[in-house]
Amino acid sequence: MRIAVDAMGGDNAPGVEVEGAVAASREFGFSITLVGIREAIESELRNHNTAGLDIFIKHASQFITMEESPIAALKQKKDSSLRVAAKLVKEGECSALVSAGNTGAVMACSKLAFGSIKGVERPAIAAPLPTEQGVALLLDAGANVDCSVNHMIQFALMGNVYSKVVFGCHKPRVGLLNIGEEKGKGDELRKKVYPCLAALPVNFIGNVEGKMVYAGDVDVLVCDGFSGNIALKMSEGASSTILNMIKGGLEERRLSRLAYLLMRGTMRKIKKRVDYSEYGGAPFLGLKKLAIICHGSSSSKAVKNAVKVASIFEERNRNGEVMRQISEQCTTWSRKALDLPETEGK
Amino acid sequence: MRIAVDAMGGDNAPGVEVEGAVAASREFGFSITLVGIREAIESELRNHNTAGLDIFIKHASQFITMEESPIAALKQKKDSSLRVAAKLVKEGECSALVSAGNTGAVMACSKLAFGSIKGVERPAIAAPLPTEQGVALLLDAGANVDCSVNHMIQFALMGNVYSKVVFGCHKPRVGLLNIGEEKGKGDELRKKVYPCLAALPVNFIGNVEGKMVYAGDVDVLVCDGFSGNIALKMSEGASSTILNMIKGGLEERRLSRLAYLLMRGTMRKIKKRVDYSEYGGAPFLGLKKLAIICHGSSSSKAVKNAVKVASIFEERNRNGEVMRQISEQCTTWSRKALDLPETEGK
Repeated sequence: MRIAVDAMGGDNAPGVEVEGAVAASREFGFSITLVGIREAIESELRNHNTAGLDIFIKHASQFITMEESPIAALKQKKDSSLRVAAKLVKEGECSALVSAGNTGAVMACSKLAFGSIKGVERPAIAAPLPTEQGVALLLDAGANVDCSVNHMIQFALMGNVYSKVVFGCHKPRVGLLNIGEEKGKGDELRKKVYPCLAALPVNFIGNVEGKMVYAGDVDVLVCDGFSGNIALKMSEGASSTILNMIKGGLEERRLSRLAYLLMRGTMRKIKKRVDYSEYGGAPFLGLKKLAIICHGSSSSKAVKNAVKVASIFEERNRNGEVMRQISEQCTTWSRKALDLPETEGK
Repeated sequence: MRIAVDAMGGDNAPGVEVEGAVAASREFGFSITLVGIREAIESELRNHNTAGLDIFIKHASQFITMEESPIAALKQKKDSSLRVAAKLVKEGECSALVSAGNTGAVMACSKLAFGSIKGVERPAIAAPLPTEQGVALLLDAGANVDCSVNHMIQFALMGNVYSKVVFGCHKPRVGLLNIGEEKGKGDELRKKVYPCLAALPVNFIGNVEGKMVYAGDVDVLVCDGFSGNIALKMSEGASSTILNMIKGGLEERRLSRLAYLLMRGTMRKIKKRVDYSEYGGAPFLGLKKLAIICHGSSSSKAVKNAVKVASIFEERNRNGEVMRQISEQCTTWSRKALDLPETEGK
């Protein structure tokens, strides 16, 4: 099992990518191929002790920046680190792709290179969301901004399989992100999706709101990519604002500074809990091969954890079990197949 | 100027309503009519010193619970505290309504009793969102789950007028809540709304994401009621989770407890900053009279602040200035009136 890391993606490439890959290789013994400009990667590698680590470099002469238009960049830059890394995975030299690069380009490139699993209409980003109890999986986190009922059905099925196989969650609680808990709440899309999810062979717990999500009452949170992305980014914004306020407030006064020093350990633990990078990027589900998408601003820790997630996935995805289950379920279940009464799930 | 407070709305009625009304009357000298079951209100009033305060009771024999279906409850309970309070405002005995009751019922009742301002297609809830710099106004916060381009145009116009007149914001920065900052981002609705907002006579700053919102870079945040409500509730969930974690983490260890005691002042200040109740409920904009909607779980402080917001509004809304401006602008500007090129704002 070998993971391909796009060493030139991300705001701080290739520094954090190389550091993260080295750490993952050292801590977990993973084999890694760093893809990008050889000299730049080698120069970074010299800052680390890589003795005994299974790290290769695969040279790629170009890279895609965060600002470029994904489709145009993919077309023009045939030797970009992203395309070369995806090719390694496609051809079986590596088993998964990790990139903190231009999200649109990573999505388009992996879709193109890996192809969708049979039966999957729209691959979706499954973002890990830290809660008071652990982690919930929110999907779609932004790959599909305009969603149909069938897309949402498939998000529920894919999230359910992933949560079971990769997180080892026995009976994932699948919820619909909505603006009220009662049945019948929400916009037209939610009203149509609800009865469909209720009829699926998953543990559907109904509509869920922010409070329930953060209390840890749901494992798989189904949403369209637009509101899912808004939910994630507003949560991140609110969290970091509070942490900033605490830091700022404490620095203001002498006594508070003492308090801050005393509670540094606790604050660090909390920051770690709510730090999205701890959860190592978001898998792009529904493709024949695995791609893990990290924040552009990822730290080396985020890259390390993304490699870890990719490895756990590969380990548990024996004989393509995850892909097989996703394909089977997405082929079987659709709005039409559920055959609900006229008034429901139209 | 007299404010009608629905004393029987809310999870903790009439206790917090009465306490909040007394506090508002004492601190700011406001005149208040408490509407609800006379004996229950009188019994609560006996717990407070009301000497010299201008507080009336208006008896209403029924009240609507949080669980009731709004429309059915309004129809059946003709003498509910909410309906009686709204009637006082409609007939000019009071100038604004404050209720922490069943949100759906408060919306339906005030729409019915006050009527929409001429030109306004959909009244919207304008929720105050605490940021690092102050407060942003998010609308719609949930009154309209399925929105058209015209609705969103009107949210921008109404928010702009309110922010100017009531918050005294000279040139409110109006932003579109979206999943990326670049023009062209988002779902079909956002793509159509963007050029329209850009063509309006408001200070449109483009798309905004969670980070910008919390940094305080926007004054009026335009969104459909579905994603707006999700944004609010996820933010609230994330905030309270972090505060809980800090409290829980600090209580774990001796040294941390000391730290916690030392930093209590700072924490209290922060809690106050991010506490939605500090901002006193959300005005329901677009109606001929003002209704302020509070959380069902409002504290007496939230009720007090809602009364304060209602009073500030009434004071600045001289000769119905806010309503006049909203009417004029919403009548003038629509997708059609903007007459954008074919490719934009369709």
